[in-house]
Amino acid sequence: MTDLAQRPLYDAARLSRLFAPRHIAVVGVSANPQAFGAMTLANIAGPGRFEGPVYRVNARYAELGGQPCYPSIAALPQTPDCVFVAVPRDAVEAVVRDCAERGVGGVVLFASGYAETGLPDRRHQQQRLLDIARAADMRLLGPNCVGYMNYGLGVIGTFGIASFIGKPPAPAVGLVSQSGAIGAALAQAQEHGLRLSHLLTCGNASDVDVADQVAYLAADPACRAVACVFEGMSDPTRFLEAAARCHDAGKPLVVHKLGTSERGAQAAVSHTGSVAGSQAAYRAALQQAGVILVDEIEALLDTTSFFAKAPPPRARGVAVAAVSGGACILLADQAESQGVDLPPPSAATLSRLEALIPEYGSPGNPCDMTAQVLATPQDLHACFEALMADPAYGALVVPHTFAYDAATARIATLGRAAAEHGKIACNVWLTQHLEGPGAVESEQHPQVATFRSMRHCMAALAAWHRHQDWHARRGVRAPRLSPPGAAARAAALIEASPHATLTEREGKAVLAAYGVPVVREVLVNTADEAAAAAQQAGFPVVLKVESPDIPHKTEAGVIRLNLRSADEVRTAFTEVMANAQAVSPLPHINGVLVQPMVPAGAEIMVGARIDPQFGPLVVVGLGGIFVELLRDTALRVAPVGTDEARRMLDELAGRRVLQGFRGSAPVAIDGLAEVVARISELAADQRQRIAELDVNPLICAGDRILAVDALIARAP
Amino acid sequence: MTDLAQRPLYDAARLSRLFAPRHIAVVGVSANPQAFGAMTLANIAGPGRFEGPVYRVNARYAELGGQPCYPSIAALPQTPDCVFVAVPRDAVEAVVRDCAERGVGGVVLFASGYAETGLPDRRHQQQRLLDIARAADMRLLGPNCVGYMNYGLGVIGTFGIASFIGKPPAPAVGLVSQSGAIGAALAQAQEHGLRLSHLLTCGNASDVDVADQVAYLAADPACRAVACVFEGMSDPTRFLEAAARCHDAGKPLVVHKLGTSERGAQAAVSHTGSVAGSQAAYRAALQQAGVILVDEIEALLDTTSFFAKAPPPRARGVAVAAVSGGACILLADQAESQGVDLPPPSAATLSRLEALIPEYGSPGNPCDMTAQVLATPQDLHACFEALMADPAYGALVVPHTFAYDAATARIATLGRAAAEHGKIACNVWLTQHLEGPGAVESEQHPQVATFRSMRHCMAALAAWHRHQDWHARRGVRAPRLSPPGAAARAAALIEASPHATLTEREGKAVLAAYGVPVVREVLVNTADEAAAAAQQAGFPVVLKVESPDIPHKTEAGVIRLNLRSADEVRTAFTEVMANAQAVSPLPHINGVLVQPMVPAGAEIMVGARIDPQFGPLVVVGLGGIFVELLRDTALRVAPVGTDEARRMLDELAGRRVLQGFRGSAPVAIDGLAEVVARISELAADQRQRIAELDVNPLICAGDRILAVDALIARAP
Repeated sequence: MTDLAQRPLYDAARLSRLFAPRHIAVVGVSANPQAFGAMTLANIAGPGRFEGPVYRVNARYAELGGQPCYPSIAALPQTPDCVFVAVPRDAVEAVVRDCAERGVGGVVLFASGYAETGLPDRRHQQQRLLDIARAADMRLLGPNCVGYMNYGLGVIGTFGIASFIGKPPAPAVGLVSQSGAIGAALAQAQEHGLRLSHLLTCGNASDVDVADQVAYLAADPACRAVACVFEGMSDPTRFLEAAARCHDAGKPLVVHKLGTSERGAQAAVSHTGSVAGSQAAYRAALQQAGVILVDEIEALLDTTSFFAKAPPPRARGVAVAAVSGGACILLADQAESQGVDLPPPSAATLSRLEALIPEYGSPGNPCDMTAQVLATPQDLHACFEALMADPAYGALVVPHTFAYDAATARIATLGRAAAEHGKIACNVWLTQHLEGPGAVESEQHPQVATFRSMRHCMAALAAWHRHQDWHARRGVRAPRLSPPGAAARAAALIEASPHATLTEREGKAVLAAYGVPVVREVLVNTADEAAAAAQQAGFPVVLKVESPDIPHKTEAGVIRLNLRSADEVRTAFTEVMANAQAVSPLPHINGVLVQPMVPAGAEIMVGARIDPQFGPLVVVGLGGIFVELLRDTALRVAPVGTDEARRMLDELAGRRVLQGFRGSAPVAIDGLAEVVARISELAADQRQRIAELDVNPLICAGDRILAVDALIARAP
Repeated sequence: MTDLAQRPLYDAARLSRLFAPRHIAVVGVSANPQAFGAMTLANIAGPGRFEGPVYRVNARYAELGGQPCYPSIAALPQTPDCVFVAVPRDAVEAVVRDCAERGVGGVVLFASGYAETGLPDRRHQQQRLLDIARAADMRLLGPNCVGYMNYGLGVIGTFGIASFIGKPPAPAVGLVSQSGAIGAALAQAQEHGLRLSHLLTCGNASDVDVADQVAYLAADPACRAVACVFEGMSDPTRFLEAAARCHDAGKPLVVHKLGTSERGAQAAVSHTGSVAGSQAAYRAALQQAGVILVDEIEALLDTTSFFAKAPPPRARGVAVAAVSGGACILLADQAESQGVDLPPPSAATLSRLEALIPEYGSPGNPCDMTAQVLATPQDLHACFEALMADPAYGALVVPHTFAYDAATARIATLGRAAAEHGKIACNVWLTQHLEGPGAVESEQHPQVATFRSMRHCMAALAAWHRHQDWHARRGVRAPRLSPPGAAARAAALIEASPHATLTEREGKAVLAAYGVPVVREVLVNTADEAAAAAQQAGFPVVLKVESPDIPHKTEAGVIRLNLRSADEVRTAFTEVMANAQAVSPLPHINGVLVQPMVPAGAEIMVGARIDPQFGPLVVVGLGGIFVELLRDTALRVAPVGTDEARRMLDELAGRRVLQGFRGSAPVAIDGLAEVVARISELAADQRQRIAELDVNPLICAGDRILAVDALIARAP
């Protein structure tokens, strides 16, 4: 995939003057407190904020608010690491040029009206800014951006109203948002106790983009986990590389991808001109890269904060404890729908719980502790402790139905039990309407993750378990299955074909080069040759006219199935040739293929296509209605190993067909997964030569797996 | 269904002394402010709360807090309408007896440890309370309940901490919660501006239950829409009747049903001993009754408040306007996934928007207005106004990315535009972390509904549209399709069968009585008779041994398909009879059925079963893998008319099969819907006689629809 990357990610060192400056200038400050320049200055240089020098620049003032104001960047007593440019669009280029000449580390451009307008001259205007910056090795954030916040340094680098509740004391969640407004909205979470290390936005992303920002946070020790929301990017493989840097640094990366709908994707194009890309490809590529995806923006920060706090799961079981039977049921419903297991406690745990919980409660899992236990702090701790101590559980979920003063102490009790066992506790506010006392404590407790939705809580726990699996297989390279020389032989076969779409026989020869079992076939030109070939293959056989000019062979009557004798074969030969010659315009006919008739089995479709953003993708589905009506398929970036291919098969809604349906033999899953993996190697190897590949059907019964038809379209 | 109802709903008049009392007594008050009695008294009689007399009862005190305290109910100067009983379980029965003797209207029992323990003596204890109350025509709420709140009267009738922000000034949302803790948690929404008229809980529901409470709110003018959360009930048909009363009163009823998962349902049983029931049956019955279902507890109040404010939709189109392109995309994504249409504005609207929005924004739908418009109140109103005026739109959704002071004025602007056009606006807080200024104004604005989740907003709009459809067909009685006398003829046929499960021939005769087209068949006893019958039917034919003792006919080799001549029929007759006689133990054989072979077509399964809670249910699915592997079925309470049956077919994931798949003719949907409706009439008519019915397959091609096999199990 790396050959698709247009440019490498910036190393953190090349971004640090922009995002962790030692000195700052704001160009365009003024006496009007509502103006962008004054707002930016106030955000950066206010009390308790950035401690380094912040230079004011505006030729119209000699001083502002008792501080000197400089006429230009050139006039500054010191070269600032980072310059915030709050001047109208027409004045921006001169400032950027001044910054470049002075050796500034990075500029932040707020002005709008560049490439996002779609107007050619505005695109050129933006490109000139980029050219100036690149020539000086100066980073450029924007234009059309709302800036960035480095909360730890107190750099609230934006022109608008911005949440800031003080410098976070410890590693916190780093937030990257392509949309400035969404980022700023999410950052309000700080006012409810969620600690952010950064909010990085990038506007038109002419230079520094979302991928660079994620990679930067991977390297910044102030950030413990990264939350990212974006709509699209021209080169998502750079984002995958940024994800790898996060994982190398031990930092979970949680993403909400906007524009998952057709309408949303259209809106994304008209918004910043970015390409939303194929949703299915994004999902597959991000998941393969170990990115944790959330399906709602509302889940983004809670989930990231959970991952920032949670150690790797020590057990897959989750315990639920509540003082409300109703809340127990709500959580059990969500656990089941998200695939989270709530196993019963051990006998020892159960007897501890039974000793604590009155008869109208329910010791067990979920555990309805009753209000009586809640009112007795030592009993409450003992209940939490009993569940945390049980090796069946890796996490304890406690819904809080009230957010009154007592919640604070209860959250501390919960956190203590979690800390004692090195596990994570989740506090779920049963109502999102009110958090009240305890909210900040819950958010800031290092062992207590906070959720405002039962569904989001259970979805995060399920993702946590999957993420552990992903980590376990990260770096384990699946062995290549294809025979040595397969790539070169297949390349030669593809290039030898005179057709834009290879004939079935050519296509199957390419598959065979990769060790994919294909149905044998012989090309014949007379009825007698057909009968002899059939005898050789064994009855029953199939006859099929080979012609690049007859795509829909069944409709044209040039296929005959289930021929049981030499006479039937001879008759069929005459018929299919007559039908082929009746096609208008007269097709080129290579001859007639004779194949043994493959007995019935589960029909599988394996395909591949070369995605403009992600390169080779492999897809598998159950044939017939599953693919055609229900679009029940699984997709990955190719190549995949057999383990990943097996997971693809596991994702199919109709996977039970493979286990033997209506008395048919179960399909050998390992064999099928191997075939999928081989086809994925083909797609990856030949991605420059092919555009599309479709093996449909692959007929499977027991360990007999045979590609019956294949279509390979060459790259244009 | 009404024959399943155990007892009628209470009329509102018989509940008004309980829920809208003129005078109250609290039994068990004490000097300990933490005790249940004192807490309850403080909740009811505090400043700004209930204005009528509140009598203290406790034999241990002569006065409490300067007020007289009475030794017993009998000693009170006046008979109270409602008595809150805050004494330990062992003392409850005597108090209830006193109340009954005095002629109290209703008692609220907080004590736990009754039927919910599952202990027989505790069940009896609860039953005795009920017997005392019923004999005196006194209502009983609980036991094991947290009471109720009539916010308009200031009756905060509970022993715990309870949200109360003053008596609501106007009709508001009434909340019914089987779980007291969940109800109390949700009621905290009042502190963010959501207005509640009541919170009614029922604990063990020995007398007054969720259905009675919903029906009560249907009659109370203080309530404009009802939100209800429950886990299960022994007789849900009473709830359906309560829903009908809501609709008669023009009040939407929004429900979150707990225990939708297997695990959640188990937890429900162990919680209050209530039966969660079949989820699919609940969903079908509630939707048929016009109940609006939400799939997450977090959506309950926002959705109900939306329905309380929204007029019927004047158009199905929804407009989205934001100052963030990212928020536009988020809402477009959720609209598409919830099936909400965002049509483009009219040319006139577009030109109004284009005049207002700068070039870097996006006039259209979603409409990215840009921050510049936001900063100019008259432009903001003009944008809202333009969209509200467009007849394509019935609602306008505006996400708020910030919740600072300016939000208040913007929400007022939005509400003004909505009011001018008699439409609804939805304000979606983009972050659930903070609402801040504007939150209460948004919540309380009569034309602005408030949401904290994009998904919940779009789901509510989709439900609003469906609800309008439901209203349009409410009260329209589908004509009965079955021929006169069908019920009696079918009853006679079912009763005439000597078998627990009717033979295929008997079953099809029952279907035929209802006008369901069935494949013709003749029962024969010799090979010659078989050949003659085949000649009569027309070749090809099917032979099938008729025996109540051979359930799996294919496996036993007693079926032969596709017989094309008299000779083939004679040979097959001999074979199937020999195979039948080889079955051990020797089966009873009625003879051999001769049927014409039905040509291929789409295979449909239509079934019915008699649910212990909801009575006859009808189910339809596509045959084969769709039903067996994917469980792709649609369910309704029977009977249904053809329109409803058509909606059932529309719900099937594989419905495209019916439109003609792989060259087969499209199925006549009207004809198929009619057959489903006829079978539903059969199930409804014969619900006392049958337990289960399975027509599988119904083979459909064009307007040829034929029941090929039928299984009818008689009621035990």
